[in-house]
Parts: sequence; C-alpha cells; structure tokens
Amino acid sequence: MTTPTRIYMQEVATRDGFQNESVFIPTEEKIRVIDALSDCGFAKIEVTSFTSPKAIPALRDAEMVMQQIKRVSGVEYTVLVPNVKGAERALSCGIDEANLVMSVSETHNRANLRMTREQSFEQLKQVVSAISGSHVAINISLSTSFGCPMQGDIAEDEVMHWLERFANMGVTRATLCDTTGMAYPSQVRSLTTRAKKLFPEMIFTLHFHNTRSMAQTNVLAALSAGIDRFDASLGGIGGCPYAPGASGNACTEDMVHLLELEGYNTNIDLTKLLAVSAELPALIGHDVPSQLLKAGRRDRRYDAPEYVAAIGQTS
Amino acid sequence: MTTPTRIYMQEVATRDGFQNESVFIPTEEKIRVIDALSDCGFAKIEVTSFTSPKAIPALRDAEMVMQQIKRVSGVEYTVLVPNVKGAERALSCGIDEANLVMSVSETHNRANLRMTREQSFEQLKQVVSAISGSHVAINISLSTSFGCPMQGDIAEDEVMHWLERFANMGVTRATLCDTTGMAYPSQVRSLTTRAKKLFPEMIFTLHFHNTRSMAQTNVLAALSAGIDRFDASLGGIGGCPYAPGASGNACTEDMVHLLELEGYNTNIDLTKLLAVSAELPALIGHDVPSQLLKAGRRDRRYDAPEYVAAIGQTS
Repeated sequence: MTTPTRIYMQEVATRDGFQNESVFIPTEEKIRVIDALSDCGFAKIEVTSFTSPKAIPALRDAEMVMQQIKRVSGVEYTVLVPNVKGAERALSCGIDEANLVMSVSETHNRANLRMTREQSFEQLKQVVSAISGSHVAINISLSTSFGCPMQGDIAEDEVMHWLERFANMGVTRATLCDTTGMAYPSQVRSLTTRAKKLFPEMIFTLHFHNTRSMAQTNVLAALSAGIDRFDASLGGIGGCPYAPGASGNACTEDMVHLLELEGYNTNIDLTKLLAVSAELPALIGHDVPSQLLKAGRRDRRYDAPEYVAAIGQTS
Repeated sequence: MTTPTRIYMQEVATRDGFQNESVFIPTEEKIRVIDALSDCGFAKIEVTSFTSPKAIPALRDAEMVMQQIKRVSGVEYTVLVPNVKGAERALSCGIDEANLVMSVSETHNRANLRMTREQSFEQLKQVVSAISGSHVAINISLSTSFGCPMQGDIAEDEVMHWLERFANMGVTRATLCDTTGMAYPSQVRSLTTRAKKLFPEMIFTLHFHNTRSMAQTNVLAALSAGIDRFDASLGGIGGCPYAPGASGNACTEDMVHLLELEGYNTNIDLTKLLAVSAELPALIGHDVPSQLLKAGRRDRRYDAPEYVAAIGQTS
C-alpha cells in the first residue's frame, strides 16, 4: 500500500468565473458560495479581484467579500491584484496571497491589459515592492503560456524568460495558464518539465481551459511531469472570449473525479462540492459545462427496469 | 524523423448517433452525410442498423441507405446486426462487416436486449453461422466492458470470458465499449493490456463515451496500451440514456484534433470533417457536444483589436 500522491486543488470560480457573468451576483451569495467551498477541502480559493470596479463591475464588492468570508484553517485565500492600488486594497483585507497576471504573448497582453509586456512587468514590480515585507505570498500567472489566439504559438524560451524575471524578483509561485485552451498533452509535458528543471524552487500551478476538450488530458500530462497543483473552476464556469459557446475553465468536479479514480488524493469532498455546483445554474442564470453535475459520478447506480428480473426465468 | 503511428478512426454517428434522435432523418440526408464522411479518411463507417424497424424506427431505411451510399475504396462499411433476420437483410446489401452486440453485464443485457447473456450469445452464434462462408467480417461489441450503470463494476475476468467465447467461435474483431462513460484511464490501460495479451490475434477497437469528461483521457490510455482503433461520433452525438443531458459518444473531431496534435496519423481530413459536423445541428434539430465545432482548432487565429498596435508606442 503506497500513500496516494497529494494533489492541491485551487478553486477559481468566484473570481475567474463570476467576473465573466453578465448578472451581478449578490455579495451575500458570493460569500455563501465561498464559505461552502472553504468546507470542501481546497488548498486555495481565488476569492475575488481587486481590479478597478469600473473595469470589472461584477467584482466591485471585492472588499466586502474578502472581509466577510469565513476563513478556514489550511485554505489559502488569494485574490487577483493588477496594480499598487489593488495591492493596497487587497492588503487591507488580510489576503494570504496576491495573484499577479500578465501575458507571455505581447499581442494578448496589449489586448487584455492594454499595456506592453514591459509596462505590465514594471507595474507588477511595483506591486511586488508594495507587498514584500508583509506575510502575503505572491503568485505570478503567465497567460497564454501555451499559445495565443492572435499571435499563435509561444516559444518555450519566452515562458522561461518571464519566469526568470519574476524569479529574480523573489517571486516563488507561478501559474502557467492555458488561457484559451490551446495546450495539448505533449506540449504540457515538455513545457512543465523544462520549467520545473530550470526553476526547482518555484511552486508551479497549471491552469487549463477545456475549450477544445483537452483539459483533462493536459492535467494527466502535467502530473506525469511532477506537477501537483491545479486551478479549476466549479461547474467549469468562466468562458473564453475567443470561443463563444465553448467550454472555458477546466471543471473542478470533473477534474477531482478523474484524479480520485486515478488514485490521487485531492483532499476534496466531492459530495459537498457537487452540492455547491448544483446551485450554480440558478445563481448565474444559465447551464454550466460540468459533466459530472449532469451525469453523477461513476459509482452512481440506476435501478434495473422491472422486466429485467423476469427475463430468462422461463426459458 | 519517425513515421507517425497510424490510428484507425471509425465513425459511428450515422448508426449510434442517428438511432437516438427523435426526428426521423430523411434517407437522402443520411446518404449525403455518409458519402461526405466517406471522403474524410475513416477506416470504417458504421452506416446503419438492421434491427427491427419497429424497435428502432429512426433507422427503418437501413436497406435503402446501405444500397445507395457511394462506397469509397479503403473504407469499410459496417452495420449493426442483432439476429439472423438482420444478418440476411444486411448480407443482401453487400456489407463489409457485421457488428454484433451484447453486454458483459447480465443486468444491462437484460435491460437493453431483453434477453439473458446466454440467450444473446446463442442468437449471435446463429448470426456468425449465417455469415461465415461469406467475405463479410464479424466484430463483437461488448457493452458495459468498463462498468454497468445498474450492476456497477465489471470484473476483467468477465470481459475476458466473453472475448474467449467469441474468439473460440472464430470472431477476430472485438470492440470494448464504455457504454455509459464509466471508464477511467488506469482501468482502460489495465483491461486493454490484458485483452491484447490474452488475444493477440484479435483486432481491438475501443469505444468511449464522454459522459464524465474522460473520453479523451481514456483514448490516450488505450494508446499507451497499444490500441490503434477508436470508434467516435461526429459532433459527439448519440446520448447515454442513463445520464440525460450529459455528453454521449466520444466526439470524432475532438479526438482527431487531439491525436494529430499528439503526433499520430489519423488519416482524417479535419477540415472536411468539421464541414460535415457543422451541418449536424440543423439536421438533427439541436446543438451537439462537439467542442471543436464551437472553438475551432488550435491554429485558429483571431485579429487583434485595433488599439493593440498603438499601445506602447507613445510611452
């Protein structure tokens, strides 16, 4: 009997998912969902985003949410921090981690953040300065690490370059993001193997989208390269603007179900998790991509039709 | 430079998909779809089913379809054959292969075929007799090989037992079917490895459903065990009655896209395939689970917003 490998699950639905919804989810509902998620066994929850309320009105209640959730021991509460102003707001709420974001693709960074990569880097450097000295951890999320919907393929060297610049700044946590679902398994294995080798001290998270039905295969590929942390989104919510109607974020419950069947220990209570997911469609006003929510887990049992018992008894 | 491993793709949408649709798809439309699929590079197409027209009215035009499609050299045309009557009808149309079906699960066989497994086996034995001597190949599809929604887990020994009985009858082709999406990667690897070892002469196909978002991971697991033939359904059509609203059959275009990115040669023209898939929603009257149809392939490019070029030039 070997102990199952521990996998660290990080929930992003309340930030990466809710920010994309057209309806404003009431603050008390957000808090209720986060509190329920805190009870499911996650290693980390991305609570909200301290971007400008004008830029992302869906998360304009960031302070209230962050201050009113019930903190559970063992769960890290992270938030997206785009700039020094956001850092100050976030620090005032007692966050555990600040999640910084920029794109490896120059074109995507300009399109998404309206800055050059160098401008983003300078801004994030100021955020790091503002935070260092506190007990708050810093994670850098590198968008489009596996490809850009405008620019195309992204060289591994480019990803390593930006990892190095943040590592030199003292950042010890990094997320490789497949922002628009362009990653595929052999690519994931190659990039993560190299990243882990070049930055052995860095704690890596992989963040996949299921846009082209490859999220689950990419998770298994990353595992084979020694990755043990994954972002995922309850119900699979959080779309990709470049593929309307397609699935977005990798779905937490589908990923946990797969990982547990494969013998990993995710620490997630899947029954509790599915109960939270089941509330999402009513909360956000539309169906969610989650497969497990519709199908139930593998061990779900159905009654046999009544005629089944009688068959063959007379033959 | 190594030659990419050839993977044999087998399309099942026009049988396994169309039989589940509530609308009757006009015979000429079926023929048009099959002819278009014949031009995509499949190794095999499951054209229709010679079940009783009363049992499956959606495919009551089996003879007309089978007789009027354009046969393309290199493509095998297979049909589902449930009994001797069906075999006679199918043989009169010049099929290349008869696909026989029974469940490894006793409960599922009774529920689905309204017979015991022994009764099914006797009936299929008669079909094999009726066909042998012709040039028509025979394939046995073993449903619920990876689990039964009523009975639960299926022992590997049970699957091997039924493979052996058909092998002893001279059947040289077998499909291991994950009928309701219960298969997971390590299970797939274990079962297929054992089946291939015990029946080295058998040509195996794997048939997955994406009910719980594991079809693509199961394909990669089967590949790692040396499997090189897969059933898949255009658009991912063909549901699972035990998980309403969930995805059904593994989606052909999503599978081909993954396999080609992983360096395999599927022989499929994905552009042509996507063009056929794009017609499905109008034909069957509802959306299809295909991810690739919505998102486009990985190399799809989007134009950058106009403001992108100007950013940074003034800083």
